[in-house]
Amino acid sequence: MKLKVYGDILSGNCYKIKLLLEFLGLSYEWVPTNVLRAETHTDEFVAMNPNAKIPVLLIDDSKYLWESNAILNYLAEGSPFLPTEKYSKALVLQWQFFEQYSHEPYIAVARYLKLFLGLPAERVSEYEGKHEGGYKALAVMENHLKKSKFFVGEQLTIADISLYAYTHVADEGGFSLDAYPNVIRWLKDFAASKNYVPMRTS
Amino acid sequence: MKLKVYGDILSGNCYKIKLLLEFLGLSYEWVPTNVLRAETHTDEFVAMNPNAKIPVLLIDDSKYLWESNAILNYLAEGSPFLPTEKYSKALVLQWQFFEQYSHEPYIAVARYLKLFLGLPAERVSEYEGKHEGGYKALAVMENHLKKSKFFVGEQLTIADISLYAYTHVADEGGFSLDAYPNVIRWLKDFAASKNYVPMRTS
Repeated sequence: MKLKVYGDILSGNCYKIKLLLEFLGLSYEWVPTNVLRAETHTDEFVAMNPNAKIPVLLIDDSKYLWESNAILNYLAEGSPFLPTEKYSKALVLQWQFFEQYSHEPYIAVARYLKLFLGLPAERVSEYEGKHEGGYKALAVMENHLKKSKFFVGEQLTIADISLYAYTHVADEGGFSLDAYPNVIRWLKDFAASKNYVPMRTS
Repeated sequence: MKLKVYGDILSGNCYKIKLLLEFLGLSYEWVPTNVLRAETHTDEFVAMNPNAKIPVLLIDDSKYLWESNAILNYLAEGSPFLPTEKYSKALVLQWQFFEQYSHEPYIAVARYLKLFLGLPAERVSEYEGKHEGGYKALAVMENHLKKSKFFVGEQLTIADISLYAYTHVADEGGFSLDAYPNVIRWLKDFAASKNYVPMRTS
């Protein structure tokens, strides 16, 4: 299987894909794609993903797949990172949809406003609003991680990859994790996994 | 398998579950749960779903599952509504994550503001902002449905159920579908499916 990933490693959604590919020891080509320079809005890019977002996976030079969590499910099938038992597999999806609806739009967007846009004055109140939703998501995670080593049982799955990507850089969006000791413990367990790669390598 | 659904049928996310259960001909108990009366914030409800949202599925009196699209994947496994081929199955997820990130937060939220909250004056600019994002999502759908009968191939899958739920009531959020003839054609094909049930039965 030949794999090409269009992405930006500083985007948590793209970093998810790199993490799983490294965990699986798969070879792949990474094509740096810059959102701020509108490289996702060229005709060529929109032909790959009409929703004009990264990451995009190109499989065997012929099949495109987008949406980070769909890509994770595709790549993880048949590996220890995606359970085969029906209910456990559904719980992985539950946490991934939680990530995209209740976590990413707050924690990732606050980081985007601060780190990438330099927090423009006209977006400060939006930024502050993102903190309320983000802390709600962190409280749901903390509550769950009190009772469970990883999100679905005792083994790391793609649900953890999905939630790790933006949680581990939540401070870059102005979040403090001090009140979430089990989230901090889980971040450490995650980063201690075999073949882990940091988001920034330099 | 004993199934209990906590939901509000006027919520598209809950209606998705009812549609699939009816398509599959499964028996289930429906427990009406009212968001506006904060019934998702009671101690009992939060013990089922710490994220305090409907729908929630209770399986065999013992296992809870939340996030509408995770529930659809759980119930559809082994049925014609979820392909088994790896790439097609990933495309179903691609469209479901698109729905939760790029469609629902605009089209469903505009409807919520208008239909359920009566469009309060202080939220008019938020409501108008939702239209821009919603029309972008409709354009992505129209573009795809020009080339494909349903979202993943020629058969209705849970990807269609996910996108149908709020698209078919987009007018209740102030959207016009006039510029999206293939979306209108797809809505008609969907509603002509065997065992289809409307959102409102009275």
